[in-house]
Amino acid sequence: MMMRAVIADGSGGPEVLRFIEQPRPGPAAGQVLVKVAAASINRPDVSQRRGVYPPPPGVTDILGLDLAGTIIEVGEGVTRWKVGDRVCCLVQGGAYAQYCSVPQEQVLPIPDGFDFIQAAALPEIFFTAWNNLLLHGRMQPGETLLVQGGTSGVGMAAIQIAKLVLNATVVATAGTDEKRAVCLALGADAAIDYKHPEWDVLAAQASGRSGFDLILDSQAGDYTARHLAILRDDGRLVLIATHRGSLEQVDLMNIQRRRLILTGSTIRPRSSQYKAGIAASLEQRVWPLLSNGSMKVLIHSVFGFEDVAAAHALLDRNEQIGKVVMTVEA
Amino acid sequence: MMMRAVIADGSGGPEVLRFIEQPRPGPAAGQVLVKVAAASINRPDVSQRRGVYPPPPGVTDILGLDLAGTIIEVGEGVTRWKVGDRVCCLVQGGAYAQYCSVPQEQVLPIPDGFDFIQAAALPEIFFTAWNNLLLHGRMQPGETLLVQGGTSGVGMAAIQIAKLVLNATVVATAGTDEKRAVCLALGADAAIDYKHPEWDVLAAQASGRSGFDLILDSQAGDYTARHLAILRDDGRLVLIATHRGSLEQVDLMNIQRRRLILTGSTIRPRSSQYKAGIAASLEQRVWPLLSNGSMKVLIHSVFGFEDVAAAHALLDRNEQIGKVVMTVEA
Repeated sequence: MMMRAVIADGSGGPEVLRFIEQPRPGPAAGQVLVKVAAASINRPDVSQRRGVYPPPPGVTDILGLDLAGTIIEVGEGVTRWKVGDRVCCLVQGGAYAQYCSVPQEQVLPIPDGFDFIQAAALPEIFFTAWNNLLLHGRMQPGETLLVQGGTSGVGMAAIQIAKLVLNATVVATAGTDEKRAVCLALGADAAIDYKHPEWDVLAAQASGRSGFDLILDSQAGDYTARHLAILRDDGRLVLIATHRGSLEQVDLMNIQRRRLILTGSTIRPRSSQYKAGIAASLEQRVWPLLSNGSMKVLIHSVFGFEDVAAAHALLDRNEQIGKVVMTVEA
Repeated sequence: MMMRAVIADGSGGPEVLRFIEQPRPGPAAGQVLVKVAAASINRPDVSQRRGVYPPPPGVTDILGLDLAGTIIEVGEGVTRWKVGDRVCCLVQGGAYAQYCSVPQEQVLPIPDGFDFIQAAALPEIFFTAWNNLLLHGRMQPGETLLVQGGTSGVGMAAIQIAKLVLNATVVATAGTDEKRAVCLALGADAAIDYKHPEWDVLAAQASGRSGFDLILDSQAGDYTARHLAILRDDGRLVLIATHRGSLEQVDLMNIQRRRLILTGSTIRPRSSQYKAGIAASLEQRVWPLLSNGSMKVLIHSVFGFEDVAAAHALLDRNEQIGKVVMTVEA
């Protein structure tokens, strides 16, 4: 049984994306085989296409980090899931395909009322936000959070988790009035224009507590020193990407004396066992809030499988508000 | 009742140290008044004398962070301690004095067989090592540790805690053969000459596991990038001072992708409640090992109270191996 899938054939713009045909993967022990109905386009897919974010060793070079679809086969030792289940999944790669084998620990049910398109948009952003806020960021109820880039997928998930699970004070940044309105609609207490020359001062003022216990940032570069300056004592700067640059001068005495933590993470290389812990937390504490409508996922646009290059071109322009999803036909 | 005490009158060399006379402090509620028999000289005392490490707001400008002596008065609400108890104490300042009032949570018994001089040498270094290894560094049993400067007071405490409490693999650095021999005698698995141009490579090799889960460092500056490079994934660089410089370029993508943690701390400004938690851990897990001779504190030399300037001059030269302690007469 063959299937169609998308890889990056070399590094570059959307034009390097290429369809390939290869054998449908059978589910190994502990895996389920999902007939993919929709896969979302994530920022790391774009970085991988550009050649700056290679897949972890041993992982397929088929693109795509999350998907939704229907289980059509279960491997040995799979107990919870059965053929016919509608699910959404976090994967290490391989979501841009008609079929994908997934470790059972990385499978979640689809929240009530969600279609495949909405469900495919959930895993990568909610696993990433949960991992960085609660695990790497060790966020506690009632703390203050700055989300740098509040309308990114992870940003939107982070705003909602921080407000609805942790009752935090949340300040988000965004570059347009429309994006800032979305941040506020998602529950942020304040939304700051990162194009303002004093965005850091404005953000700290909006925290209501002279700064932040946690900053979730994908920019790094020149933002780093400014972020470290507006952390409260014992505050944590958690990097999920370094789009503005990686080599930066930091004030180590400030870090030491104020007990700051500079750290970061990527979820992709982590073990299935690690991801299982996050999946359990999400299912218990976030999925009910999606099912009852308290939390939302915004879908900016939906592309067909054949239009994957157009979907990538949209992320390259960075004009979307919300997730970009691709439907996949068998 | 007046007492003699030592302050830094301005900033500079040992010559700025000056004796003052001031009223003996009464113990407030929850405090004990200790007649000081010995106080140790710590590196932060030297930094404070030089004007680069001011005391926390509201803290006495009398120097000195730890002491041993006899309780001569107990404040309201003190239950555990009584007049006549021989104790050693961590203080926020004020140890270079004939009398010192101490919150009861920062008081520990003197380990079996220890005299006042040895006991005065314990609190600052063991509180600091425990705080940074176990709490800020979240060190787990069996991890690998690099102690940068293994014969500093904190370094010696850290080597012993890591080996005897955490069964860690410990590599220490030191600048002379004699100091390296002391590191090994204290239990370090390897001792590296930090004057070797490739000390970092040698240290990583000696870890037996391609690098370190934790690095305890007081140098910072140009060591920082080298330390970050020899951390294992999820490794932590914990700064307890920044003697080689504070403004340094770091590779943020390395931190993010390998989930490193760059942090640090000082114990001095922390609350008595926070210190109480460490005191309880030390009494339970470290004091028995001091009492039975498994752990040691090395005393390099002992000065009389009048010779405080000579004691500081010795630390300025940084030639000591072990603690420098001052006896205090009433």
